[in-house]
Amino acid sequence: VIRYALLHPQLELGALESRSHSGTRVGDHFPLLRALDRRFDTPGSVLNSVTDGDVVVTAGVPGEALTVVPGMLRKGARVVDLSADYRFTPSVVYGLSEWNHREIAAAALVANPGCYPTAAALALLPIQSVAKPCTIVIDAKSGISGAGRKPTIGALFVEVAGDVRAYGLSGHRHQAEIERTLLAHAITAPVTFTPHVVPIARGMLVDAYAIFTERVDAEAVLAAYERAYKGSTFVRILNQDVAPSVSAVNGTNNVELRIDVIGSTVRIICAIDNLGKGAAGQAIQNVNVMLGLPEEMGLHAGVVVT
Amino acid sequence: VIRYALLHPQLELGALESRSHSGTRVGDHFPLLRALDRRFDTPGSVLNSVTDGDVVVTAGVPGEALTVVPGMLRKGARVVDLSADYRFTPSVVYGLSEWNHREIAAAALVANPGCYPTAAALALLPIQSVAKPCTIVIDAKSGISGAGRKPTIGALFVEVAGDVRAYGLSGHRHQAEIERTLLAHAITAPVTFTPHVVPIARGMLVDAYAIFTERVDAEAVLAAYERAYKGSTFVRILNQDVAPSVSAVNGTNNVELRIDVIGSTVRIICAIDNLGKGAAGQAIQNVNVMLGLPEEMGLHAGVVVT
Amino acid sequence: VIRYALLHPQLELGALESRSHSGTRVGDHFPLLRALDRRFDTPGSVLNSVTDGDVVVTAGVPGEALTVVPGMLRKGARVVDLSADYRFTPSVVYGLSEWNHREIAAAALVANPGCYPTAAALALLPIQSVAKPCTIVIDAKSGISGAGRKPTIGALFVEVAGDVRAYGLSGHRHQAEIERTLLAHAITAPVTFTPHVVPIARGMLVDAYAIFTERVDAEAVLAAYERAYKGSTFVRILNQDVAPSVSAVNGTNNVELRIDVIGSTVRIICAIDNLGKGAAGQAIQNVNVMLGLPEEMGLHAGVVVT
Amino acid sequence: VIRYALLHPQLELGALESRSHSGTRVGDHFPLLRALDRRFDTPGSVLNSVTDGDVVVTAGVPGEALTVVPGMLRKGARVVDLSADYRFTPSVVYGLSEWNHREIAAAALVANPGCYPTAAALALLPIQSVAKPCTIVIDAKSGISGAGRKPTIGALFVEVAGDVRAYGLSGHRHQAEIERTLLAHAITAPVTFTPHVVPIARGMLVDAYAIFTERVDAEAVLAAYERAYKGSTFVRILNQDVAPSVSAVNGTNNVELRIDVIGSTVRIICAIDNLGKGAAGQAIQNVNVMLGLPEEMGLHAGVVVT
Repeated sequence: VIRYALLHPQLELGALESRSHSGTRVGDHFPLLRALDRRFDTPGSVLNSVTDGDVVVTAGVPGEALTVVPGMLRKGARVVDLSADYRFTPSVVYGLSEWNHREIAAAALVANPGCYPTAAALALLPIQSVAKPCTIVIDAKSGISGAGRKPTIGALFVEVAGDVRAYGLSGHRHQAEIERTLLAHAITAPVTFTPHVVPIARGMLVDAYAIFTERVDAEAVLAAYERAYKGSTFVRILNQDVAPSVSAVNGTNNVELRIDVIGSTVRIICAIDNLGKGAAGQAIQNVNVMLGLPEEMGLHAGVVVT
Repeated sequence: VIRYALLHPQLELGALESRSHSGTRVGDHFPLLRALDRRFDTPGSVLNSVTDGDVVVTAGVPGEALTVVPGMLRKGARVVDLSADYRFTPSVVYGLSEWNHREIAAAALVANPGCYPTAAALALLPIQSVAKPCTIVIDAKSGISGAGRKPTIGALFVEVAGDVRAYGLSGHRHQAEIERTLLAHAITAPVTFTPHVVPIARGMLVDAYAIFTERVDAEAVLAAYERAYKGSTFVRILNQDVAPSVSAVNGTNNVELRIDVIGSTVRIICAIDNLGKGAAGQAIQNVNVMLGLPEEMGLHAGVVVT
Repeated sequence: VIRYALLHPQLELGALESRSHSGTRVGDHFPLLRALDRRFDTPGSVLNSVTDGDVVVTAGVPGEALTVVPGMLRKGARVVDLSADYRFTPSVVYGLSEWNHREIAAAALVANPGCYPTAAALALLPIQSVAKPCTIVIDAKSGISGAGRKPTIGALFVEVAGDVRAYGLSGHRHQAEIERTLLAHAITAPVTFTPHVVPIARGMLVDAYAIFTERVDAEAVLAAYERAYKGSTFVRILNQDVAPSVSAVNGTNNVELRIDVIGSTVRIICAIDNLGKGAAGQAIQNVNVMLGLPEEMGLHAGVVVT
Repeated sequence: VIRYALLHPQLELGALESRSHSGTRVGDHFPLLRALDRRFDTPGSVLNSVTDGDVVVTAGVPGEALTVVPGMLRKGARVVDLSADYRFTPSVVYGLSEWNHREIAAAALVANPGCYPTAAALALLPIQSVAKPCTIVIDAKSGISGAGRKPTIGALFVEVAGDVRAYGLSGHRHQAEIERTLLAHAITAPVTFTPHVVPIARGMLVDAYAIFTERVDAEAVLAAYERAYKGSTFVRILNQDVAPSVSAVNGTNNVELRIDVIGSTVRIICAIDNLGKGAAGQAIQNVNVMLGLPEEMGLHAGVVVT
């Protein structure tokens, strides 16, 4: 978020508050920002400095946003929260930019979606205009940055490199978020969700399989997806000779979708950057929508130098 | 295969024939065999030297086995072929060791299964004793060594590292092999098969989803798997607090399975080494079975030093 | 270069000529440009369309620039060539931006330095103002992208991942370029140059060891480096509690240097992005200098979103 | 060490004591040992069970060996310690197998060398029979497993993947061990030691540069190395068309050396597995020597199946 904000032509970086890094140089924690002459501010700095019309992006451990966001809202700030704290609060807008654009534009508080739910929802929501699946399988592959930056044995290089493993098999916290989002669009099929860790730092590929009781009309399905994302700045529906790839979206806010209808199964493969469209990118996109700016401002319209 | 054979207490390495590497040192092509004082023999060396009772392991481009294997069989040799040439020939034994043990023991020619079909079959075959699925989804993640060692742009480090991508979406040659094997065990459900490349050199994780029209009895399913692999040297059914992992099987002939029953969906996750149980390891396992040796001889009984 | 040019506020992409990719979509070859609606133009397109005041960036196999650049110059274009074709031509300006700024600004043709020579020269040139080393050791670690994108066995994922290896031990083509650049600044010590491949796609770390016959004054050395790069946009001299890191410069045109004086040895560690400051980034920097634009324009002043 | 011991034909695994893992399954910590039906024993188990003639391998945090080893020795056990606790104790044998074979055979206590010192010593010790270098540069590249398995931010996948970085620039604990070993063989030149982390799990490449005041006789140097390692089971001197490679030694106890004489500089490149010859492999080699067994027993004579 910091780097996006630095490059954004209409945003200016205000207070940069951190509980754990307070007072230390930003670049000591993020190598690519070593050249940035800026330190993290102390807790409370944002609340003290924020004024009417400002936008605050919050990201914290579970429960933290609940304690700081209300005060910011009272001071007239608008907030995009990256944690899960507000994702299940009915009065708070769910920041899935492509589907809730109008609500986001008017919102004081936006709950930015999780990375898996973003990819799963973008992959599955259009299907409901064609037919209702009876069962859904979501097989997801994520870079390890999805686990955050807390040092755990499972996130060590020696444990991740060379390995591919499923995890959260007895229940992942994103399952409920996915189901709630599908339900909000009248998709009621039971969901089997299998997250995996793959040895990449960032990026995410989600294979969603919508299973129907009978054969599905391929043209109708494809038309539904074309319709849903027509005019979308970031979502691209690939044609049949290309497969979604994490490398094609990493470092961007782009989304690649490919749809195949195979008998009574519709397979949608979705690639996003878990730290881009799955987190910071979508947050900036939402900020742009909230401020009435072009959706892609500061997001490079999908062309980024890595 | 060469390394397994070198360490095998009852096998002695005979002719080592190669069309492309003929005359060059083995270690020039395989770093870990640099210390081996051996050159590849010229084409024809095996046929010339093979005698009654020998076992030949063949691996070649499509069609090559068809031209060399018959001659070897005529000279009394027994053959394990790693290519796909004989996998669809009804009179040839399909070398899925755990399921065709008796036939392999008696066979003159064994068609060693492909890596994806090995994992998919080990994951799905036991289910049919409980109920017949109506739809099957196989979402597979493979190390790039599955693509062989031919230099292509898609297999370059710069293309594979940092990426996760689906491929073969319009049809992968292993789909038919998987379907044929399932059919041979009376599983007739349509299969959606999605192979992916993940940035590891070797190893494979296959998530198989068997979807039923109604809820499935979890205990019956688990019992079927326990029964199917009871006494198996290499297949381990993990309990509910462990997830299959490529790192746990790489360099071995081991198979990790985890079974979850989620409503009317049964998810079986299977980890194998695509070059081990998915190729060379299973070949040696089959050689052991053919020669009446203990199945795990030279395969370290599942404990290997890497 | 294409991506930098697309994001550059003062550059407009003209003809995009390619011999091997002519007529195909740019995005078919470079995943991150999949969204770009542009095809490679046919050979000759640049020469046909170029006019007085244009800047052409050329990159080709050895000898190719020699055949196409003279025509472009005759039509009044200015050229930055990324190949080695002109690096040893006395009348052509060597595009080491930090050291040849004035000459580059006035040049019609700039030979963009190789990646190793860029890092080695930035690391070693300041030392000569203090004392003359008697021996130089350059131990370099490069990402495999330095080998280009031609499919070779040595550049396959299976060969590169998990390995670290020296190469070019009997002579690397960059050795002469390094020696020539040092000589141009009166550093005549013999150079032992050892390039290595490390399993990263991009990035380069060069450890340069300048060995003297007697102890060196640490303060004088450090002062010489501070002086040499004072006011430099891209070169940062790190203090003693930070080590240069490829991750800190990848995707940027930045250069990290750290200098340690250890008795009679001066160790300078230099990190650059071999595709950034070591190739495309420095090319754009040189284009900026040639056009009288701010040096960092389109190069994000060292802050880049990856 | 556990895996080597399991496969060793003459060793039997006794107590398996661990302070931190006491009571837990071995396989819960090491994926490749998941199939092993064994738990870690409680602290004190070794001391209680050890008897005359047993060999104990110890590995602990600094100072721990000092508290447990004396008791073991008193009970008649022989000990190989992998920590640095005894490496500087004059009365304790330094377990550099190729150079101290006779002393190891007779020792009650062997201090197993560190990984960097093993590679550096094997690379440099033979040179002193030809001439005395005036300066030594050791530029080392290590897999991150060298940092142990403690979860730190610096060892996370997201920090290590894609990066190459120097570390310990103000002094690495192995520097003194290297200098002491060189000194014991009359090499008194000052050493500049630069360790780096490269994104591999295991393996190590050490480039040692011995700098002389005048040109060196290449044939004499090469002859010295051939002489030093003649008959060595594990050390291989590569010829001039091969470069040492981590992949060629990983999973083994092998050592690859390549020597180049370039004017007055001798460059020796050495590849070892930091967890093999640099730790557990050399420990088993030393156990073999202590027990009068063939040096390579259980170490596969340099051919290992990974």
